[in-house]
Amino acid sequence: MTPCGDRGYYDCCTVQCGCSMSHVFDQLLVLFQDVHVMIFIGFGFLMTFLKRYGFSSVGLNLLLAAFALQWGLLVQGLWHLDEGKIKVSIFKMINADFSTATVLISFGAVLGKTSPVQLLIMTLLEITIFGINEHLVAEVLKANDVGASMIIHAFGAYFGLAVARMLYRPALGNGHENDGSVYHSDLFAMIGTVFLWMFWPSFNSAIAEPGADQLMAVTNTYFSLAACVLSAYAVSSLVEHKGKLDMVHIQNATLAGGVAVGTCADMNIGPFGAMIIGFVAGIVSTLGFKFLTPILASNLGIQDTCGVHNLHGMPGILGGIAGIVAVALGKKDGSAIMQAAALASSLGFALVGGAMTGLIMKLPFWGQPPDQNCFDDSIYWEVRT
Amino acid sequence: MTPCGDRGYYDCCTVQCGCSMSHVFDQLLVLFQDVHVMIFIGFGFLMTFLKRYGFSSVGLNLLLAAFALQWGLLVQGLWHLDEGKIKVSIFKMINADFSTATVLISFGAVLGKTSPVQLLIMTLLEITIFGINEHLVAEVLKANDVGASMIIHAFGAYFGLAVARMLYRPALGNGHENDGSVYHSDLFAMIGTVFLWMFWPSFNSAIAEPGADQLMAVTNTYFSLAACVLSAYAVSSLVEHKGKLDMVHIQNATLAGGVAVGTCADMNIGPFGAMIIGFVAGIVSTLGFKFLTPILASNLGIQDTCGVHNLHGMPGILGGIAGIVAVALGKKDGSAIMQAAALASSLGFALVGGAMTGLIMKLPFWGQPPDQNCFDDSIYWEVRT
Amino acid sequence: MTPCGDRGYYDCCTVQCGCSMSHVFDQLLVLFQDVHVMIFIGFGFLMTFLKRYGFSSVGLNLLLAAFALQWGLLVQGLWHLDEGKIKVSIFKMINADFSTATVLISFGAVLGKTSPVQLLIMTLLEITIFGINEHLVAEVLKANDVGASMIIHAFGAYFGLAVARMLYRPALGNGHENDGSVYHSDLFAMIGTVFLWMFWPSFNSAIAEPGADQLMAVTNTYFSLAACVLSAYAVSSLVEHKGKLDMVHIQNATLAGGVAVGTCADMNIGPFGAMIIGFVAGIVSTLGFKFLTPILASNLGIQDTCGVHNLHGMPGILGGIAGIVAVALGKKDGSAIMQAAALASSLGFALVGGAMTGLIMKLPFWGQPPDQNCFDDSIYWEVRT
Repeated sequence: MTPCGDRGYYDCCTVQCGCSMSHVFDQLLVLFQDVHVMIFIGFGFLMTFLKRYGFSSVGLNLLLAAFALQWGLLVQGLWHLDEGKIKVSIFKMINADFSTATVLISFGAVLGKTSPVQLLIMTLLEITIFGINEHLVAEVLKANDVGASMIIHAFGAYFGLAVARMLYRPALGNGHENDGSVYHSDLFAMIGTVFLWMFWPSFNSAIAEPGADQLMAVTNTYFSLAACVLSAYAVSSLVEHKGKLDMVHIQNATLAGGVAVGTCADMNIGPFGAMIIGFVAGIVSTLGFKFLTPILASNLGIQDTCGVHNLHGMPGILGGIAGIVAVALGKKDGSAIMQAAALASSLGFALVGGAMTGLIMKLPFWGQPPDQNCFDDSIYWEVRT
Repeated sequence: MTPCGDRGYYDCCTVQCGCSMSHVFDQLLVLFQDVHVMIFIGFGFLMTFLKRYGFSSVGLNLLLAAFALQWGLLVQGLWHLDEGKIKVSIFKMINADFSTATVLISFGAVLGKTSPVQLLIMTLLEITIFGINEHLVAEVLKANDVGASMIIHAFGAYFGLAVARMLYRPALGNGHENDGSVYHSDLFAMIGTVFLWMFWPSFNSAIAEPGADQLMAVTNTYFSLAACVLSAYAVSSLVEHKGKLDMVHIQNATLAGGVAVGTCADMNIGPFGAMIIGFVAGIVSTLGFKFLTPILASNLGIQDTCGVHNLHGMPGILGGIAGIVAVALGKKDGSAIMQAAALASSLGFALVGGAMTGLIMKLPFWGQPPDQNCFDDSIYWEVRT
Repeated sequence: MTPCGDRGYYDCCTVQCGCSMSHVFDQLLVLFQDVHVMIFIGFGFLMTFLKRYGFSSVGLNLLLAAFALQWGLLVQGLWHLDEGKIKVSIFKMINADFSTATVLISFGAVLGKTSPVQLLIMTLLEITIFGINEHLVAEVLKANDVGASMIIHAFGAYFGLAVARMLYRPALGNGHENDGSVYHSDLFAMIGTVFLWMFWPSFNSAIAEPGADQLMAVTNTYFSLAACVLSAYAVSSLVEHKGKLDMVHIQNATLAGGVAVGTCADMNIGPFGAMIIGFVAGIVSTLGFKFLTPILASNLGIQDTCGVHNLHGMPGILGGIAGIVAVALGKKDGSAIMQAAALASSLGFALVGGAMTGLIMKLPFWGQPPDQNCFDDSIYWEVRT
């Protein structure tokens, strides 16, 4: 099986059957569609949990993603000019969706507290900075990060947290009446959760080498997610009053296994290794929602609406560390030092880039909503009744 | 790559590998499933925006589509008898879903004002007339319409509008208390919007020639939709009070780019050409919802519940015109005159066929709901509470 | 086309093109994803119809399924050890989802009346017993059951009914205020219905022989489901007051055609044969909901919350009988006697296994909810407002 040209295209069949194009187009199109569903349905509905912010969650998600993928294709195309031209392929469309994911993760941190214009500015800047870090990690450091625990999840989370810190609103310290869910908004959010959960194996395998590596990325992610569900439910029940489950944990922490296994997804860690990663991620994420998010808000001034630190931040770092260990143990070719450098680079670009972006977003002419109109669709949408 | 037999089946691999069947079956099955999701989830939930008509929207959508695809396969089979038999293939199942789409578009125009029996009659007649026009356009005029801007979208919309004109209800001129949305019904509708948006590239490429043409149909549609989202949001904000967004525009106009790029989808118009088409479609569609729909209702007696004129009608015509221009510019083999004839044929069959169908539907024994029970599930469904 | 190794893997292309792995991985991955959507979205949301039990429906569905697929892979792996090891493949992951389906069907029978711990115990036992029966049917009796009418649907339903009988609650005989739907909960349930309906062809064809048999399984299921929708709507309208439709029938009975055609899906029964099976299944299922479910509850003490007897039980038996007839008529190689034995085995293991499991679940230390807290999320979940 000889890759030719763009990754994901093979000439083996071309020579012998003359029908490679349609077959390979196939495979990537399927993975692209799954990733696309995660971006537009998954992220969009996951954020509809707020009682009065559903229009913005799914609507601004659509706007930002449609803008981000065009900008992402452009930035990516400029990095990889082909005879002076930007060429498009399904593979590049997958990568554009990936860069979009970082923006949507950061969106979760500032959900309900920013205007559409602020978010479009964040998109422009974040995707540009993502492009620089991604180039550094993949091309210079040559680190492994097939499922992008570091360059998407950790990057997007800490970028968003840095923005949130810059946009700190002391008046929201005592909570806001709309910063919560109602029964049906929690059910809408579960649409997002379940689609993300189901298609995560496609996300982590989409840019893996076709064949055994890609198959492994699918199965490792599948096992990690399955184990993560069990630990997230168990811990949620343990930390809540009377052993009850909390919807916030179920909506989010059940997905941490997909994040955390990302870097190692195409490494030979075995089903058991994947399950350990997922199991730990479920615990860390649930505990983060319960204990860490309130501390970040009250002590550090980081108001993380969706708790992206628990779903993408800590599990992303966990994934980066797992990658360092796995490479050190020889589960994949590479250098543990370069893996560590990739993690540091992703965190550094995220925090510095996010802080700078937050400062720009804080300029007073972008229409940032006043405190009392936070978490409320009616400031940006015509809301009937 | 030599097509053999039915479009979409190849013998290149059969000869050399002996495994063509399963591979090609594959590719078409994937596209079929995406189109199927658009028909049943996309159209079904898009229409749930009405506050008290969700059961009928998604429920009658299922009934009509299940009936339409059987009738569509039959009509299609009678046109293309194979040794005196009707043969079934995934390709024909895709075409049956396509003919079903016309019915569901027309359903949108009369949503809330017709009985199930009336709708089944409309299905019978519309699919038959669709079959005649489709045969004329594809076989006689040999026009290009891979994504069916003309033969599905424009046809379905103007057919439905002609029916709506025949079924004009003066008493609804001042509005109806149930002809509107509530918060959660608008969120259900977004499920439909987003699934339609994500899978539209599959719709426009499903019957394209596999290989480069099909890949182009995917990417052109992808670019058109992305650009359309931006113009729909921008125009919605410009025309609404205080720069707010209107959910009706977001639910519908963001999809106009998929409609309008249909005819040109497999033509060599380039990403930039596709984006221009999508951008214009988003503007035209949003302006139509804001300014044209009220005029159609009050001046012409055309009460278009879902605004299909704005989502499918005008963007469909735009797509037909773009096809004429693109063929004239040599972006695809064909004749600009034949493209124009195909557009005229589609509009003519739609308006005449729709008017005749509307007259038949107006006969007094089909159980048409009285004015005061319009837009209300409880006339056809057991509604608890 | 020569299968090699695990079912679903071919060496034809390996020899000639060297690229079989990625192609075949493709095909199975696509079918796996469709089945996965049925398990997590389909079953999960189908059960959200209860007004106050949506968190548990979709949330416990996720927990049980994530647990069941791991346990199912383990049980399956122990039956089919490969050099002393349990090997994983996409094919085995599909089978794990299949064994999970039995648990989710049984979950429907006891929905709202059991604790998470009781359900986890049921999962452990049911998958083990499923594994025994599946081995008997497939390996010893060598019966056909490609879409698993008998070994999944009938088995899961009668297992759940036997459990429900053991857990009979006389106090619920007069109904419970939360044992019903509200408007929006019925719409959430339709998300489940429609995804199940659309992807059922993939379910019934996932483990068929690739090529003509698999294509036939897709088309037969497609025809059966389309016919079933028509009969379900017709009968629902006939048996309800004033010709109205009942959402319970539409949500469930429209799917009975997928169940009933399962055993015959890859047999040469023709589109017309498939449609007859689906048509009859829609009638039987709707009548069951209307007339049989109340009798089972009042006379036999079987309180079947979701009516799984009507969606999976009777249509599953119908599918088993159709399989006997089809094999007797030579539509597929096999023995009608062995088909009958397979049906009897599935029912026997289900009833005996379910009764035993129910007795164990009845032990007083699993946290079974008291009568007044049945069908209520707030006993296991933090519910805001």
